[in-house]
Amino acid sequence: MTIMTDRITVILARPQNPENIGLVARCMQNTGFKRLRLVWEGPLPRQAFVTAVHADEILHEAEIFPTVAAAVADQQVVYAAVARKRKNFPMLTREEAIGNISTAAPDIQIGLLFGNERTGLESTELLHSNFRFQIPQASSQPSYNLASAVLLSLFPLFREGFQAEPPAGQESQLPRAEQKECIDRILMKLEDKGFIHPVNKTHVTAMVHDLFGRLTMTAKDRNLLLAIFSKGGDA
Amino acid sequence: MTIMTDRITVILARPQNPENIGLVARCMQNTGFKRLRLVWEGPLPRQAFVTAVHADEILHEAEIFPTVAAAVADQQVVYAAVARKRKNFPMLTREEAIGNISTAAPDIQIGLLFGNERTGLESTELLHSNFRFQIPQASSQPSYNLASAVLLSLFPLFREGFQAEPPAGQESQLPRAEQKECIDRILMKLEDKGFIHPVNKTHVTAMVHDLFGRLTMTAKDRNLLLAIFSKGGDA
Repeated sequence: MTIMTDRITVILARPQNPENIGLVARCMQNTGFKRLRLVWEGPLPRQAFVTAVHADEILHEAEIFPTVAAAVADQQVVYAAVARKRKNFPMLTREEAIGNISTAAPDIQIGLLFGNERTGLESTELLHSNFRFQIPQASSQPSYNLASAVLLSLFPLFREGFQAEPPAGQESQLPRAEQKECIDRILMKLEDKGFIHPVNKTHVTAMVHDLFGRLTMTAKDRNLLLAIFSKGGDA
Repeated sequence: MTIMTDRITVILARPQNPENIGLVARCMQNTGFKRLRLVWEGPLPRQAFVTAVHADEILHEAEIFPTVAAAVADQQVVYAAVARKRKNFPMLTREEAIGNISTAAPDIQIGLLFGNERTGLESTELLHSNFRFQIPQASSQPSYNLASAVLLSLFPLFREGFQAEPPAGQESQLPRAEQKECIDRILMKLEDKGFIHPVNKTHVTAMVHDLFGRLTMTAKDRNLLLAIFSKGGDA
């Protein structure tokens, strides 16, 4: 079992309850993960440090970003935790997500993205993820507490560890910001062509993000895609 | 997969933070478990209902007991969650405990006992458990939050379910209060004989509780034990 907890970054998008931020840090410390990012304005409130107990160092070192886009920009694969099925955004099971993460190449930076406690992740925030996953629950209400969702995502990774050897000859994924930029360029092409129009725009935009998000694009993938859409697309 | 969540009772011994009680109820609702008991004085505070969110029914139906002994009296097997190794109280791993619980006969009432957030379970409280188990963690500090410990205990039981068929011809365990009474009678015999004396009393008492706790005694076991200690013991 090789644990490389540096490869996982927990990203909290607009959490509303500071106590939950501290509880998340505590769960991270419990399971050996250290990298925390927040989409947040201003400094972290004192209440977060109270519930963090002995995990305050994680909070002191947490990075603050203005948007989800900025928080995931340098990550190579982003998994978004969702509490309910989301139109246009297919989902993995928790077990599939954990399996994929634990067998990813060791040099890949993986972001785990969690939304606001009340609203979850907005659809525009989901566009910055490669995959969505849902933690199974016995009843539809209430959803898991934010820290519980983080804990149930991290604990199996802590226990099962990561694959020690990278898959042979596998090219590394692009940072998420570059993947997203490529998808946006494809979307512009599709809009220019009239494939995307005002009536279907929201729907198709989400579907295209999901489709090319699942590729977890390498530089080679991007070059091919852009070639297809700028040249082949004109044919 | 057969889920029989009625067989599991979550027992919180002297929790100090009402918000944690609510978070525990929420975790129970998330994973489909309903039976909550508390060793507690007075009515449950309002803050517990705030953090329970939509799991308030579990709190309304929670049973209050004055002592751990009373709270576990009618349970047949009691597993105590401990955050650290405890002298004289051998432990199962979390996986062993989960495995034993998920393959127990379906008519067995199983108590999961969790201690105070700050002090954990006192040694005298541990005497009311058959087994102890520890949830693995990456760092020694902080321990898991109370609700996190409950969640990591219940989630695999929710996911893996319980064995549908009881082991053939297996006799049912005595309620924990009767098991404890038998152990106490054995201890009195040992004290009468001078095997237990003031110098070794605490140590031997714990060891004897562990030894005979692990039997998860049936009526037949008890009869044999009492016969051995009242008759054979005089030999």
